[in-house]
Amino acid sequence: MTTISVLGLGAMGSALAKAFLKNGYATTVWNRTEAKADALVAQGASKASTIEQAIEASDTLVLCVVTNDVVHAILDEAKDAIQGKTIVNLTNGTPNQARDLAVRATKHHAEYLDGGIMAVPPMIGTEAGYVLYSGPQPVFERLEKTLRALGGTKYVGADAGLAALYDLALLTGMYGQTIGQVQALALIRSAGVEAEGFMRDLLDPWMKAMAAFSTEFAQQVDAGNHTENVVSPLGMQAAAFHNLIDAAGEQGVSADLFKPLQSLLNEAVDQGHDNADLSVLVDLLRR
Amino acid sequence: MTTISVLGLGAMGSALAKAFLKNGYATTVWNRTEAKADALVAQGASKASTIEQAIEASDTLVLCVVTNDVVHAILDEAKDAIQGKTIVNLTNGTPNQARDLAVRATKHHAEYLDGGIMAVPPMIGTEAGYVLYSGPQPVFERLEKTLRALGGTKYVGADAGLAALYDLALLTGMYGQTIGQVQALALIRSAGVEAEGFMRDLLDPWMKAMAAFSTEFAQQVDAGNHTENVVSPLGMQAAAFHNLIDAAGEQGVSADLFKPLQSLLNEAVDQGHDNADLSVLVDLLRR
Ligand SMILES: NC(=O)c1ccc[n+]([C@@H]2O[C@H](COP(=O)([O-])OP(=O)(O)OC[C@H]3O[C@@H](n4cnc5c(N)ncnc54)[C@H](OP(=O)(O)O)[C@@H]3O)[C@@H](O)[C@H]2O)c1
Ligand SMILES: NC(=O)c1ccc[n+]([C@@H]2O[C@H](COP(=O)([O-])OP(=O)(O)OC[C@H]3O[C@@H](n4cnc5c(N)ncnc54)[C@H](OP(=O)(O)O)[C@@H]3O)[C@@H](O)[C@H]2O)c1
Repeated sequence: MTTISVLGLGAMGSALAKAFLKNGYATTVWNRTEAKADALVAQGASKASTIEQAIEASDTLVLCVVTNDVVHAILDEAKDAIQGKTIVNLTNGTPNQARDLAVRATKHHAEYLDGGIMAVPPMIGTEAGYVLYSGPQPVFERLEKTLRALGGTKYVGADAGLAALYDLALLTGMYGQTIGQVQALALIRSAGVEAEGFMRDLLDPWMKAMAAFSTEFAQQVDAGNHTENVVSPLGMQAAAFHNLIDAAGEQGVSADLFKPLQSLLNEAVDQGHDNADLSVLVDLLRR
Repeated sequence: MTTISVLGLGAMGSALAKAFLKNGYATTVWNRTEAKADALVAQGASKASTIEQAIEASDTLVLCVVTNDVVHAILDEAKDAIQGKTIVNLTNGTPNQARDLAVRATKHHAEYLDGGIMAVPPMIGTEAGYVLYSGPQPVFERLEKTLRALGGTKYVGADAGLAALYDLALLTGMYGQTIGQVQALALIRSAGVEAEGFMRDLLDPWMKAMAAFSTEFAQQVDAGNHTENVVSPLGMQAAAFHNLIDAAGEQGVSADLFKPLQSLLNEAVDQGHDNADLSVLVDLLRR
């Protein structure tokens, strides 16, 4: 059976270690601030006092620290101990950071999987969340059963950077939704309207109704064809967009979150995309 | 039975007139470019050659033109003819534009309802879309049965500006979702990944999963309490946000759409909201 060391016992690392323990894996834990290991030791974990000890204890090393700079610092301390080990790095970072770490691991004859956790700590070990993985497919397949202790798994490709890219793309989608919600609620609250009823009865159903067009939107992006079956041409939307900005001004709400979209719509019009669907904006963002 | 004149026969106005005709209402139509009336006349509408004729023909006047400037121009031509009439203005505009028109109508002894159409023209007359209305409640109640010819109705309050405010808040929510989708797809496409599968299997389910927190989010806004049961503190999110910006840079994708959110998160941190939920941003947008 796989033996696992978890390095980094913050909110997320602790949840990961707990899930491995619950599934019966021999789990060694290490954290800079040692006290965070105590609760896990009480659940059966072995505590390592040094990074080298933690790495020597197991064949699979799960890293989850604040940033990839700290991952590099850990590898600096690990010296030759990582040779022959499998590193599963679940620290958030960019695609290029993951690619650099993959190169570094290979140089030290270690295997490297990168991961992106699509869950908050309480979801770890449940099917409510999942982890995206990228790196060599055989390594993922060998470890998949073990990694399922953390919840769902989604393997997204051999390029080590892909898990981070998918992760950040999903977060980006979520933050866009947040931009929409905070601006909408600021507008509504400015007139003294209750946010809860507005969200439940109007905004949430409306955003879900609009999401029905998502697949078609994505198909248009794949095809690079943005001008078929257009119901709301970009030009019409660009022309009406100032109402959103003006209404915010009238109601004493900042419109800053939406100004770049206004500029992008105007740029699209300048480039002759009046009759296109908004999916054309994907092309405009890629320069 | 109510008699109706529809002024403005663009894509939307034509759909409105068609829905009234289908429900058996005596409908008079007017458009600046007269030819657009022909299809409706073939369906039983009466054509008015002047604005005054259109107004005199019916007790209820439905206006749907490009902007409220045009609505004012139509009222300029109408002179005294609008006295005693009920105006239902379904032209898109800001809350203050609607409030000004309500004042103007009252001055001419006409009733005024403002409306915001949450539908594209093919949805008119179906339950797939609805129209938001604001203005005097008795006027709305008297006309509701008639207005149901257009699809669902949602009355949102006596302040004439509210329908526009709700309408723009909903559009804002949708545009936020669009910001998230276009940025996410630009990132994904930059690595040659197919957008359709990503949208269907990952982004769309993820955005729906995140929407599960919407009601709680709105409750926090109503309560002005953003620091209970926080799973992802704003400070942590602000600290990691540069990954989104950096990853875009690495992949050759503009990050402009997300820079104002980054600034707002940093501002929230500066103001001491590290441990708050993102719902606190609603308060920050209102100055
Ligand atoms: N929490 C979530 O909802 C969530 C969701 C998805 C992904 N993630 C990702 O998971 C990773 C960990 O997040 P978290 O929530 O566990 O954060 P956290 O609770 O703030 O924990 C941070 C961890 O990093 C360690 N660390 C920081 N600086 C260090 C250094 N210089 N040397 C050694 N260790 C250092 C901390 O050690 P000390 O205890 O000694 O400070 C701690 O173990 C991050 O990349 C995060 O983006 C988190
Ligand atoms: N289409 C949608 O998906 C949709 C959805 C929700 C709300 N709306 C709103 O509905 C309203 C109408 O939209 P639409 O889609 O019907 O637009 P449209 O197809 O572009 O039609 C514009 C209408 O405004 C008239 N107009 C423009 N300038 C005029 C002027 N100076 N004097 C008199 N009439 C003038 C046009 O007359 P001519 O024919 O003579 O040019 C036409 O009847 C807008 O406020 C829009 O925001 C539309």
